[in-house]
Amino acid sequence: MAQKPSIPKGTRDFSPAEVTKRNYIIGVITKHFERFGFQPIETPSFENSETLLGKYGEEGDRLIFKILNSGDFISKVDDVTYSSKNSGSLAPKITEKALRYDLTVPFARYVVMHQNEIDFPFKRYQIQPVWRADRPQKGRFREFYQCDADVVGANSLLQEVEFVQLYDAVFTDLGLDGTTIKINNRKILYGIAEVIGAQNRLVDFTVALDKLDKIGEEAVKAEMVNKGISENAIAKATPLFGMIGNNQEKLEILKGLLSESELGMEGIAEVQTILAHIAELGLQSASVELDVTLARGLNYYTGAIFEVAAPSTVQMGSIGGGGRYDDLTGIFGLKDVSGVGISFGLDRIFLVLEELGLFPESLDTSLDILCLNFGEKEGAASLKLVGTLRSLGLRADLYPSAAKVQKQFKYADKRKVPYVVLLGEKELNSGQFIVKDMNTGNQQSYSLDNPEAFFQTL
Amino acid sequence: MAQKPSIPKGTRDFSPAEVTKRNYIIGVITKHFERFGFQPIETPSFENSETLLGKYGEEGDRLIFKILNSGDFISKVDDVTYSSKNSGSLAPKITEKALRYDLTVPFARYVVMHQNEIDFPFKRYQIQPVWRADRPQKGRFREFYQCDADVVGANSLLQEVEFVQLYDAVFTDLGLDGTTIKINNRKILYGIAEVIGAQNRLVDFTVALDKLDKIGEEAVKAEMVNKGISENAIAKATPLFGMIGNNQEKLEILKGLLSESELGMEGIAEVQTILAHIAELGLQSASVELDVTLARGLNYYTGAIFEVAAPSTVQMGSIGGGGRYDDLTGIFGLKDVSGVGISFGLDRIFLVLEELGLFPESLDTSLDILCLNFGEKEGAASLKLVGTLRSLGLRADLYPSAAKVQKQFKYADKRKVPYVVLLGEKELNSGQFIVKDMNTGNQQSYSLDNPEAFFQTL
Repeated sequence: MAQKPSIPKGTRDFSPAEVTKRNYIIGVITKHFERFGFQPIETPSFENSETLLGKYGEEGDRLIFKILNSGDFISKVDDVTYSSKNSGSLAPKITEKALRYDLTVPFARYVVMHQNEIDFPFKRYQIQPVWRADRPQKGRFREFYQCDADVVGANSLLQEVEFVQLYDAVFTDLGLDGTTIKINNRKILYGIAEVIGAQNRLVDFTVALDKLDKIGEEAVKAEMVNKGISENAIAKATPLFGMIGNNQEKLEILKGLLSESELGMEGIAEVQTILAHIAELGLQSASVELDVTLARGLNYYTGAIFEVAAPSTVQMGSIGGGGRYDDLTGIFGLKDVSGVGISFGLDRIFLVLEELGLFPESLDTSLDILCLNFGEKEGAASLKLVGTLRSLGLRADLYPSAAKVQKQFKYADKRKVPYVVLLGEKELNSGQFIVKDMNTGNQQSYSLDNPEAFFQTL
Repeated sequence: MAQKPSIPKGTRDFSPAEVTKRNYIIGVITKHFERFGFQPIETPSFENSETLLGKYGEEGDRLIFKILNSGDFISKVDDVTYSSKNSGSLAPKITEKALRYDLTVPFARYVVMHQNEIDFPFKRYQIQPVWRADRPQKGRFREFYQCDADVVGANSLLQEVEFVQLYDAVFTDLGLDGTTIKINNRKILYGIAEVIGAQNRLVDFTVALDKLDKIGEEAVKAEMVNKGISENAIAKATPLFGMIGNNQEKLEILKGLLSESELGMEGIAEVQTILAHIAELGLQSASVELDVTLARGLNYYTGAIFEVAAPSTVQMGSIGGGGRYDDLTGIFGLKDVSGVGISFGLDRIFLVLEELGLFPESLDTSLDILCLNFGEKEGAASLKLVGTLRSLGLRADLYPSAAKVQKQFKYADKRKVPYVVLLGEKELNSGQFIVKDMNTGNQQSYSLDNPEAFFQTL
């Protein structure tokens, strides 16, 4: 009854090489999260259903994985519901828990539950998997990691400045030069909608505007008309179509357009403050660009919004994003706690680094030294040597059986081991071991009494 | 409509302090896994149900969390099944995936699926959460981490020797002196059952024998009789009741008892070989003890079995365990691949280190430097300083608003920050910043042009 094994669609096994590369990225992100003063938390993989449902819109609710109640789950379903044979009515009766859909809602729940233990402002980071019952496709998975950093309880725009610096620090450290950190502000978008009189068409408007550099002004306008935005509104918005130039020029255009909108002018001032600080502090490898078409889907954003584009040499969607939300914890009963946060897209960053060959070569080596196995007595002596090398901090191993030398060398090759130790009968009798440098082919003898001598050559 | 938030029973939120301590333990374990030549893999959180079901016994199947199918799940249930209103018949029709119950079965599935990419012998480690619908109780959770290392495709007993060394290396590094690595062998247990003629009472027999040091010989014998083990079998097993003394003395008693059992004698020889190697290599802080009452529940073990006891100063169940299984991948169609592995019990190790005060003090510090915020202009200058300190590798932060100095100091205290930077108007005008050592109260001035001077004092 052997089964041919498989894994659920949209999920992945990660091989040693993949885990090593993913952990490298996570390590760099974590290092900078901590340097920036963020502290780690972890939340359970599943939450009570009511914590998650209704937080991500109707579409989100559909995509949340629900966990079947244990035991005799069906006995708790009343007859009326059961006889309806309706999935929508049955689901809440037979499930109480659901897999986390993102890290933001669990974080909001965490802040509210632990508000008395937390020292605000609370800067937390969280790197954990999330699950979505999305249709799997290239680059979209049903289980994937999110890497989030958020600050709650701090209204200062310096937080936004720090997040731009944080993106810059991480991508610079990863060797990914030339990223663009796009910035916008929800207040600017509200302001635009306000002054053109299209408050209820904001999404259609920004989606169309977003295509300006691809399809041109006329086509964008046509799409807007198509979506039911009035000619009058479009005419008022005309300055936006000239939004080419540097950040300062764009801000000037916006100031002209939004002068009548208090909220819009507030958004402009915020962007200006953030950009001024960034200009003063400087960035290492990223650039910041005001992008008034940047809207981001999540409804809870209320202020600054961010999105990071990979270097233009790579075709890839955004590799990070975030923004400020003024009342996230309100849904759980804690009012007036402002939050701002960003996220790193691990899977896409992985693909970008892979494509640009930016993973350090050292990641290819998972073992520093392999000791070949020449039999029982030699193996025992080798085990002692291997133990010493390990205690010196090296990753060392003894081939587990006295297989043919050729086979053992082949294994060393496959694992890309830089040094192979030969400790055969002859060496054992003379109290020595030979180290073969697998790159140069050179061999060198050392005394078994002093393996440190080899260690010092590394 | 604010909800009072909670989390599902048996799950946990981990605070920054807890995550930091858990990551410290995981870091030490990972370091030694890698020094011993193990490579990381990761598998999906949920597997196809058929991969997991039937692998952990009936009780295990009950404890596996099942994921409700997405969409209109109920429409795929035939009328006959539906009208039965039976949870057992319905579950397989409305769930196809289940949360991983341990790391061993997914690993076996991984090995079979990826057998053509793997270089055998394959030494893998895996540190991921698992889920069990167990009744939550003190120290037992529905979501918890397993930390496993296994070798597949290596028959040599040197693997068992290495695992003992690995336990010793990890617990020594954690400062946990005085652990006892208990070792036994399934073949010895089979041998005992064979010679006393109680093959079908092996579990009852070992469970009773296990209580020898607590309840004494007479009570153990009474329990055995109670369980239906014959007086004759018990009489034959009498030498086991005298199993006191060192490992060598125990082995001699076993040799006398099991001389008629080929399998039993093979088990004794294996234990002897392992112990001889360990004696030759030495252990740093652990000791190895042959414990013939050690059985371990999992049916797939066929050779050596291990269990680690915390130092006797702590009341705690086993903090690690493992063993050899000769045909784990057979269930997925790959025969004759021997495996051996061990696991570290993260939650219990955490509790032991906590109780013995063994976590390094440095873990209490999550931020090296807090820069107080004295207003807009000073804040901007501080942000620059903080950026420089971060680029030097320090964890540094600026308090996000110009709150009362007392409040900012209180925050620094709560986060146990060792150094607070004061950069007020006066300092800014003189191009300086003051560092206050929070332990001594001493203050020292440095030039804003040369923050490295402060860094060098650390």
